[in-house]
Amino acid sequence: MTQANNDHQDTKAPKVGFSVKPIGYVCSGYAQPEDVAHTHVGWTADSARIQLMSRYAGALNGLQGYSHVIVLYWVHRARDWKMPKHHHKPPHVKVFATRMPVRPNPIGMSVVQLLGFSAQTGEVSVKGLDALDGTPVLDIKPYIPNFDSYPDGEVPEWVARHLNSHFHVDPAHSGAVPEREKA
Amino acid sequence: MTQANNDHQDTKAPKVGFSVKPIGYVCSGYAQPEDVAHTHVGWTADSARIQLMSRYAGALNGLQGYSHVIVLYWVHRARDWKMPKHHHKPPHVKVFATRMPVRPNPIGMSVVQLLGFSAQTGEVSVKGLDALDGTPVLDIKPYIPNFDSYPDGEVPEWVARHLNSHFHVDPAHSGAVPEREKA
Repeated sequence: MTQANNDHQDTKAPKVGFSVKPIGYVCSGYAQPEDVAHTHVGWTADSARIQLMSRYAGALNGLQGYSHVIVLYWVHRARDWKMPKHHHKPPHVKVFATRMPVRPNPIGMSVVQLLGFSAQTGEVSVKGLDALDGTPVLDIKPYIPNFDSYPDGEVPEWVARHLNSHFHVDPAHSGAVPEREKA
Repeated sequence: MTQANNDHQDTKAPKVGFSVKPIGYVCSGYAQPEDVAHTHVGWTADSARIQLMSRYAGALNGLQGYSHVIVLYWVHRARDWKMPKHHHKPPHVKVFATRMPVRPNPIGMSVVQLLGFSAQTGEVSVKGLDALDGTPVLDIKPYIPNFDSYPDGEVPEWVARHLNSHFHVDPAHSGAVPEREKA
């Protein structure tokens, strides 16, 4: 491997945990995990609101012109989540190969459409956030296609099959999974 | 706003901080923030290695077939970071409208190419990770274009201008910023 130093497990690298804090909370219509209506593109078609704490409201300034944002949040109710019945994850597939909310660090990440925001009130309106009502928000980052969009990114066959068989695939969306898995 | 409940700032939502822990560390050739060579697509063209702690190695199983992964990491040296001289961020643009590493929760997020991995050793080889050597890694998620890729996502003019004027834009990349800002 070029440009890679030695293993850091036993070196100067910090080993302790770190503390994260909510910058705000999700206000959505999802009270329970099973309320989340997933679509084939984007995590959900519903709108939600993020209410930032007042001291962070001003940090939204400059979001004008971005169509999408990345939301990082704390999956505070990961424990309530159950694998959906229609989710045919092969048994050999483990957590880092899935987007399941139950993870060593339960940090959720969703790319959502930015509908509007107010740097005065700290309100951010988004579409496509699959987070439960009351979810603590950790970060909002602007989505920059040059760095974040890989429409030709490949997924394993079981993921492609799953997406194609359980959701209607919109061919207009460049990121749609190819139909080739349908046979 | 449809499907949005009331403000959660003063309700049952958890207010305290949360603790995150490293699942591994970045081994890269970047010792200092200024070592990171940014490109126009993807954060950097260099390869790096993520060394997971042994207890998390098995959780990589099933990553076969994904071409890209999302890496969340703790920007442990955000304090050392300085705004690059060629970065012409307008003064009104604040933290949530940028990808600057200095944030309320210094969690970095990079989409990188997955070059290889071992669920035995916990090694993950990636391309495009702009993280310093020794950076604690918090999560690895598979990149799923249906949910993560928005090649037509819009960015403000100052971002498009910045990307076009300081980097060579590869027209083959679907996510490239349009040349229209060049005038």
